[in-house]
Amino acid sequence: MNDESDRAVEDTQRSTADEDLTSALRLALVPGVGPRITVALLERFGSAAAALSAAPSELRAVPGVGAKLSQAIARAPSREEVESEIALCQRAGIDLLAPSSAGYPRLLREIHDPPAILFARGDIRASDALAIAIVGSRHATQYGLAQAERLASSLAHAGLTIVSGLARGIDAAAHRGALAAGGRTIAVLGSGLLNIYPPEHGALADEIAAAGAILSEAPPRSQPRSGAFPQRNRLISGLCMGVIVVEASNQSGALITARHATEQGRDIFAVPGRVDSRMSHGCHRLIRDGAKLVETADDVLEEIGPLVEATSDAAGQSVHHPAELLLNDVERQVLAAVGVDPTSIDHVVSTSGLPTPQVLSTVSVLEMRRLVRRISGNLVARV
Amino acid sequence: MNDESDRAVEDTQRSTADEDLTSALRLALVPGVGPRITVALLERFGSAAAALSAAPSELRAVPGVGAKLSQAIARAPSREEVESEIALCQRAGIDLLAPSSAGYPRLLREIHDPPAILFARGDIRASDALAIAIVGSRHATQYGLAQAERLASSLAHAGLTIVSGLARGIDAAAHRGALAAGGRTIAVLGSGLLNIYPPEHGALADEIAAAGAILSEAPPRSQPRSGAFPQRNRLISGLCMGVIVVEASNQSGALITARHATEQGRDIFAVPGRVDSRMSHGCHRLIRDGAKLVETADDVLEEIGPLVEATSDAAGQSVHHPAELLLNDVERQVLAAVGVDPTSIDHVVSTSGLPTPQVLSTVSVLEMRRLVRRISGNLVARV
Repeated sequence: MNDESDRAVEDTQRSTADEDLTSALRLALVPGVGPRITVALLERFGSAAAALSAAPSELRAVPGVGAKLSQAIARAPSREEVESEIALCQRAGIDLLAPSSAGYPRLLREIHDPPAILFARGDIRASDALAIAIVGSRHATQYGLAQAERLASSLAHAGLTIVSGLARGIDAAAHRGALAAGGRTIAVLGSGLLNIYPPEHGALADEIAAAGAILSEAPPRSQPRSGAFPQRNRLISGLCMGVIVVEASNQSGALITARHATEQGRDIFAVPGRVDSRMSHGCHRLIRDGAKLVETADDVLEEIGPLVEATSDAAGQSVHHPAELLLNDVERQVLAAVGVDPTSIDHVVSTSGLPTPQVLSTVSVLEMRRLVRRISGNLVARV
Repeated sequence: MNDESDRAVEDTQRSTADEDLTSALRLALVPGVGPRITVALLERFGSAAAALSAAPSELRAVPGVGAKLSQAIARAPSREEVESEIALCQRAGIDLLAPSSAGYPRLLREIHDPPAILFARGDIRASDALAIAIVGSRHATQYGLAQAERLASSLAHAGLTIVSGLARGIDAAAHRGALAAGGRTIAVLGSGLLNIYPPEHGALADEIAAAGAILSEAPPRSQPRSGAFPQRNRLISGLCMGVIVVEASNQSGALITARHATEQGRDIFAVPGRVDSRMSHGCHRLIRDGAKLVETADDVLEEIGPLVEATSDAAGQSVHHPAELLLNDVERQVLAAVGVDPTSIDHVVSTSGLPTPQVLSTVSVLEMRRLVRRISGNLVARV
């Protein structure tokens, strides 16, 4: 961890992105500057540095910026204060990521209000683009906890990264399921990374950072504020291809995550339960509104994707669609031989080195899994 | 009951429909003549009497009629045998209903293969057009049984007739729920009405006949045959505006009822359950395929309908839409004053005799329940 944060700090000190990051951090540390205001300021002034040196009257012309906030921005933390914050991050093994940083989560760049600065402990990999959020109530039932853990284990085992919010209940069960399967998991916090909430999840946060990452857009010493959690929820869905709600009452914050997911074009999944369990009512409402009903990990893997851009799985294989994670070796071999452009079966046979009957039956399986489509009797192409 | 069956027999003896019913019954009693063949024969020959007097070569020209069946039809029971069957029905209090009979269930006339003859014990009323089927597994869990009974009670209490198949498990719980609420319920059997199956439901069948009806398209002494049950299921859905599946494994016959319901244009509802309960998997599949998820009776009442043709409720009020059963007195009063053609609010005020503010707020409630729509600021109409 220290090696990595050393590297991150070295990057911060040396790279041309250095100035950007410092300015972004100065702006991020202004009380009252949240993600919406940040986006509005960047839209108006082009960069954090330009916003910080703008006149209060220019600042007040930005929607949402009043007299009070324009003064606070004028009194933004100095370069020195920010550098001391950076030093704190360095000591605590916390990386600072701007959207231009290589380690910034790829799917998060696509949302309409990506955090200008993201604090991270652990590491984020290319394969983490194959991520699914598992969220739900803090007051989950035994049934809900068991389902969260089971789905997280199966999906992590298949190669997906499990994202959640480190909360009590469903969130913690999802992280634990991923860890138990030896998979990857990411926690997105509403507080700063040096203020783990709830406090009893400190050890769990350490385990998650070692098998993935813990992330926050709040500076490390930020207190948990209830207002921060709905904002945080947009990052959980933003990091993922889809969101599974396991248990939620009709008032649960998990429904906010699902709404963010819809706005971000992510798939929504919900686990049903007994109609006499209040904790399932939110899930049932989501299903009525069009969320996909989930019984098993396969239901999710068959439904989500494809990725806009192919990524690499843990083994370094290129993956474009999570359903590929369900394939056996022969199926992968055949799929690898099929191009995006129409490819003849003869070509697949010669490239894969497999006997024709096996190629034909495997193509049928890939067709059923909606990974290839048949153009004509002898031509297939990737979906 | 005896009065009614006496009346039915008198009708049979006196009315011009007499000959039709006897012929229909002669045909219905031919082994191998099921509903599909009956429809094909009626389409070709115009009446049961004409089919019975057709030459074997003419009969064989009907799709599905082979040499064996054409001979069986030629050896159909005689008028005398059928009259002895009618006498048996008379003694047992069983009515014989042809689609032309006044007591024949109205919704059943709309399906593509209505039974040519229906045996009935009990009575069928106009208000039974407001019917909903509640079906499910014979191997239901305590959860499923409780939900079937609860939904049946609530829906029967609201004024719907509960239709099911008298089977063990969900079916029996649905009938019992309706009876407990003092409501109406109809059982459709796969066996003859003098061969109640399962045998331990004899007393339940008597209760149902007293609070509704037990029906079969098989002659009274027919044995339960497994082949008859899928055919029977089309009558359960055919009698109803919608079908609720409470619990069903992926192999359950209740899914056949749901398929019939789809083909008949009926609404399909399913009750979700735990994903680790096999008995809920069929329901989850239905929901994935578009069935409406049900938690409460109101979910059903708000969703089903409207009826093609208005009917009368138990109190003799005209009902066009089951959601009307949810209304209070004031809401009914206002709805009664709104026409199918655009009606002015002033007219509703003067007709109902209610103060304008109360009419306006009530119209809003009726709009929300999708019973009226607003044409303009001052004009409303029934949906």
